[in-house]
Amino acid sequence: MTPDTPLKLVALAGGVGGAKLAEGLAQILPPHALTIIVNTGDDFVHWGLNISPDLDTVCYTLAGLANPVTGWGQADETWNVFQQMERLGAPTWFRLGDKDLATHLERTRRLREGEPLSHITHDLCMRWGIRHTVLPMSDDPVATIVDTVEFGELPFQEYFVHQRCEPTVRRFRFAGIEQAQPAPGVREAMAHADALIVCPSNPWVSIDPILKILQTAAIHLPNVVLAVSPIIGGRAVKGPAAKMFRELGIEPSALAVAEHYGKRTLTGFVLDSIDANLAPAVDALGIQAFVAQTLMPTSKERRKLAQDVLHLVEKLV
Amino acid sequence: MTPDTPLKLVALAGGVGGAKLAEGLAQILPPHALTIIVNTGDDFVHWGLNISPDLDTVCYTLAGLANPVTGWGQADETWNVFQQMERLGAPTWFRLGDKDLATHLERTRRLREGEPLSHITHDLCMRWGIRHTVLPMSDDPVATIVDTVEFGELPFQEYFVHQRCEPTVRRFRFAGIEQAQPAPGVREAMAHADALIVCPSNPWVSIDPILKILQTAAIHLPNVVLAVSPIIGGRAVKGPAAKMFRELGIEPSALAVAEHYGKRTLTGFVLDSIDANLAPAVDALGIQAFVAQTLMPTSKERRKLAQDVLHLVEKLV
Repeated sequence: MTPDTPLKLVALAGGVGGAKLAEGLAQILPPHALTIIVNTGDDFVHWGLNISPDLDTVCYTLAGLANPVTGWGQADETWNVFQQMERLGAPTWFRLGDKDLATHLERTRRLREGEPLSHITHDLCMRWGIRHTVLPMSDDPVATIVDTVEFGELPFQEYFVHQRCEPTVRRFRFAGIEQAQPAPGVREAMAHADALIVCPSNPWVSIDPILKILQTAAIHLPNVVLAVSPIIGGRAVKGPAAKMFRELGIEPSALAVAEHYGKRTLTGFVLDSIDANLAPAVDALGIQAFVAQTLMPTSKERRKLAQDVLHLVEKLV
Repeated sequence: MTPDTPLKLVALAGGVGGAKLAEGLAQILPPHALTIIVNTGDDFVHWGLNISPDLDTVCYTLAGLANPVTGWGQADETWNVFQQMERLGAPTWFRLGDKDLATHLERTRRLREGEPLSHITHDLCMRWGIRHTVLPMSDDPVATIVDTVEFGELPFQEYFVHQRCEPTVRRFRFAGIEQAQPAPGVREAMAHADALIVCPSNPWVSIDPILKILQTAAIHLPNVVLAVSPIIGGRAVKGPAAKMFRELGIEPSALAVAEHYGKRTLTGFVLDSIDANLAPAVDALGIQAFVAQTLMPTSKERRKLAQDVLHLVEKLV
């Protein structure tokens, strides 16, 4: 392995946590050496527009456009359309800033003209100056449905944003996933990958849909599959992952994440340093445990974790 | 006729000129005494959004929101989404400001949910504080098609905005008009109207579609039908009406407008004072000619012309 022939990685990502590690990897890997496959189970239609929250979070983060405070939308955003929409009586539980809105308008316009989501994503990435490959998991619609005690089945964004993750989760369902083909480029990227990185995203609703698509398409995982825990000290860095584990009757911990994926999927698992005591239990699952600093508030920590991950991959391949 | 039982008027309107007289009439008539029926043949889909240019111009004008400089869109407008759309490669020949965009987003959202255009228009009017009744001519789609020498058939906004009215007109066609039912309220408003006011809008592309809808539905016109000329001194105050007359082989003039409608439609015709010399020729058509100041740059002239029109109607009924 020389600097001229770097390892080729595929990263699986959901929203914020996944986007951060993807950005770190993009800092240290040349464009052709990194493909990021992004969950689209959260995609939904709002105000008549096709919104892809995870794709947008990944792209905005890679492009340096992401809002670092909210974890969604763009920085330096304005709300002129949103204010008018409030005045006109439109539903306002999902906030869309003016810049962000343009993304959804343009995506929707092209989807209606029959252009696949993967094409549109590629073109938007070019315009945003993103040089690494970002792929939706599929061009076909997949809808994550959260079955809750209080309301029965809820579309994911209804659960996540409208109900603020408050309902108690019973089960998840991915409508359409059996029919969904991997997006063009997914199969090829996986075939050439030296390792698969499972970013620190929600295992239930961000990573599982992608893994399911790969499995249904009989796409083999590389020999090295390394996940970074999205749970640190028993708590999710962001989002409802820990709450979901608890409601499903599982004590939330990094170990529970490793168990969830299992040794059929993972060869290695990166624990945060505060969870170092869990390493023997992870090893006991037949998954090699590693320890790193996994909190990535700024670009610097993202680069550092990406380097640590890359070094682990180099050791494992 | 006492102040407690004012005349009930219906006004037919296209865009800017029609909107100005409608606003004048709204200044002097109580809400239940004025219904404005608006052309929707110009409606089109852009950026995936259903846009109703004439309805919006009338509503924005009645609500005091219209941009007085451009003749379209809202005053104090911002362009944040539009700038992003340019960056993302969207078509930019039709400019949509942020406030204006909210109208189209909300209209489109509700149309997709199956709500008729007339319902949506009614609700938006309430929210904009418009107390008089504004009706689209139909809830069914009608598409004005301009047959041109250079390009053949063009959808109206392609001709009007994208091609800046430059192509030479051969003929007009209103796709879907034979099947289009009058919007709910049109028949009732016409049945109770003491007079119909044909606002100074383009006869070919703004008023003719509305008249055609009424005719197809066998809706009788009131005994008094008074049109205000959109052509002054041989020129259109705004828009391509005079150019259209010329290209169709007719010398553009107020007289030509009166001839176009004819005595089967009109009982009276209001000429601008600079066209007073045409009054005998209009009378000779079997249409009573009147003279007034018909330019309406500000609210004051709109009110004055509306008062003149109302006095004429009072004499004629």
